[in-house]
Amino acid sequence: MKKAKIAILGITGAVGQEMLNVIAERQVPYAELKLFASKRSAGKKINFQGQDLIIEELTEDCFDGIDIVLSALDDDIARRFLPIAVKAGCIVIDNSSIYRLDDNVPLVVPEINASDIQNHEGIIANPNCSTIIGLVAVAALHRHTPIQSMIVATYQAVSGAGVAGTNELQTQIKELLDGGQPTINAFQHQIAYNLIPQIGGINEAGDTSEELKLQNEGRKILHHPDLQVICTCVRVPVMRSHSEAITLFFEENLSREEVIALLKEAPGVRYIDDPNQNAYPMPLDSSNQDLVYVGRVREQKIGNQTAITLWCCGDQVRKGAATNAVQIVESIVVEKALPTKPRLQ
Amino acid sequence: MKKAKIAILGITGAVGQEMLNVIAERQVPYAELKLFASKRSAGKKINFQGQDLIIEELTEDCFDGIDIVLSALDDDIARRFLPIAVKAGCIVIDNSSIYRLDDNVPLVVPEINASDIQNHEGIIANPNCSTIIGLVAVAALHRHTPIQSMIVATYQAVSGAGVAGTNELQTQIKELLDGGQPTINAFQHQIAYNLIPQIGGINEAGDTSEELKLQNEGRKILHHPDLQVICTCVRVPVMRSHSEAITLFFEENLSREEVIALLKEAPGVRYIDDPNQNAYPMPLDSSNQDLVYVGRVREQKIGNQTAITLWCCGDQVRKGAATNAVQIVESIVVEKALPTKPRLQ
Repeated sequence: MKKAKIAILGITGAVGQEMLNVIAERQVPYAELKLFASKRSAGKKINFQGQDLIIEELTEDCFDGIDIVLSALDDDIARRFLPIAVKAGCIVIDNSSIYRLDDNVPLVVPEINASDIQNHEGIIANPNCSTIIGLVAVAALHRHTPIQSMIVATYQAVSGAGVAGTNELQTQIKELLDGGQPTINAFQHQIAYNLIPQIGGINEAGDTSEELKLQNEGRKILHHPDLQVICTCVRVPVMRSHSEAITLFFEENLSREEVIALLKEAPGVRYIDDPNQNAYPMPLDSSNQDLVYVGRVREQKIGNQTAITLWCCGDQVRKGAATNAVQIVESIVVEKALPTKPRLQ
Repeated sequence: MKKAKIAILGITGAVGQEMLNVIAERQVPYAELKLFASKRSAGKKINFQGQDLIIEELTEDCFDGIDIVLSALDDDIARRFLPIAVKAGCIVIDNSSIYRLDDNVPLVVPEINASDIQNHEGIIANPNCSTIIGLVAVAALHRHTPIQSMIVATYQAVSGAGVAGTNELQTQIKELLDGGQPTINAFQHQIAYNLIPQIGGINEAGDTSEELKLQNEGRKILHHPDLQVICTCVRVPVMRSHSEAITLFFEENLSREEVIALLKEAPGVRYIDDPNQNAYPMPLDSSNQDLVYVGRVREQKIGNQTAITLWCCGDQVRKGAATNAVQIVESIVVEKALPTKPRLQ
């Protein structure tokens, strides 16, 4: 493929900014890079690799000549602009949730199902952040022996609510230190020194929208329509890495040793598990990293089954969003950009 | 029983101080109240209900004439002094972990197994904090239909490491705001803006000591030697309430409606579950409370089984330690001090 003209939509948000960083770090080749945001930010400059890029207003006419669109737009704005980008001939990698479960939209974690990309009809969806992190942690195990069910508790960073989320935690901490009342905007309740067991809306059955994503998106990404996921999603006062406690039941029992061996070779995974050094994945260590850190692997008997429990952490803004999207771009524009380890069929 | 002479051992720690508060709040009757700590604190005064109580040095001779000992001593010191208290004729309620699994030591959560108290031989053990909170949340369900297995992820407050733990989180927050490096003493790693997936030592199988407590203590408290628990224990930057995401499998399936009805009547439980008001248990709300807050009840199919998932929060220093211990005292000294709802046999 010739060098592509790439546009980032929503460049002023946390994910948009990080997409730009990741393009630079990974030296993604491009012919031209264009940055779009709302009218409010149009005209502002961003210094990128020694040159000033000027943010342009996102309009319906801005897609002419663009090959690849990286969209970090919110759902409503994505719904309005992305079909226009597709009509203009762009390939769109979309970080919103609106197209993820569409049958004609590939939903891709490159380490797991990169080959799905080729079936796109203009839009390739980037999965939910906690879905990406959890699935990267378990995909190599599933490839070896299919997962029957996963029971997951998440510990999700405030960056999941964007710049507003990280600002709110920092502001609340300062307000409380000054003896004041914390200002609550980005979340339903105070998040400083607290946990909020709600991410997204709650349906009649009591599930939040975030809790349904891991099962619904996981089934599609793993090509495993029978995957059963029980998930509890909780916001924690951590800046930008999501963590997950995952208990897995497989079609046939896997031993702890087998799981550890698989994780050591798993694409996208850094295995850390050394109790003598108090070493295990932590959100602070996995922040600003692209790998998903996995450890605390244990094997437990439940009835006749062997359950495997593990703990993983991954940067929500990077692998949970920006890096995964840029990896999808790479798999389109760069030959052999992806890990060469076997992937799911 | 005549009014008892009560001693609190370890009065300068978070749990010892809270035992004193709870005795006042619950108007526990006593003939005399004596406070003991290490030599360093001896002679200091604590104002209690209008009078100054003087802290005495804990020695081997200090148990004469004491009827009930509330011990908030660390394991090593408890091991040295508590057998002496028993020999001196005291009934000891011990918050350490050393006697909890002894066959001749009742391990008691009064809402669940108060009748076990009568079998004591001098020592009654107070369970682990996350065990108390998790079991209060599920005991009423287990009483209705036995639990087969529980899969638990904890979100444990820094108060679990005592005053040193809460001080360390506050100090680290300030140090980071001032642009400095956080001082690490009470925990293995920085806890501010982080999660530490280790509480206690880690064994060969990869389990932490904290993770084994819920199964081992739960089996004893629920009189259920076959209870199977998979537990992941995680320290979170929250001050004093522990939270737990719990998935339950029962011997026969329970519906969400049945579970909610049982929780609304469960002793020691406050049921909170109103999505329209964004109302559910949170550690900030359950801090300085004695009830365990339970909500986010959901029913999910896993194979042929129905799993019930719930979320609970409880104050680690109060119901997780001090209040539970004082409730045990009440059940010894006060007639009808305990809930009259049916308990496990």
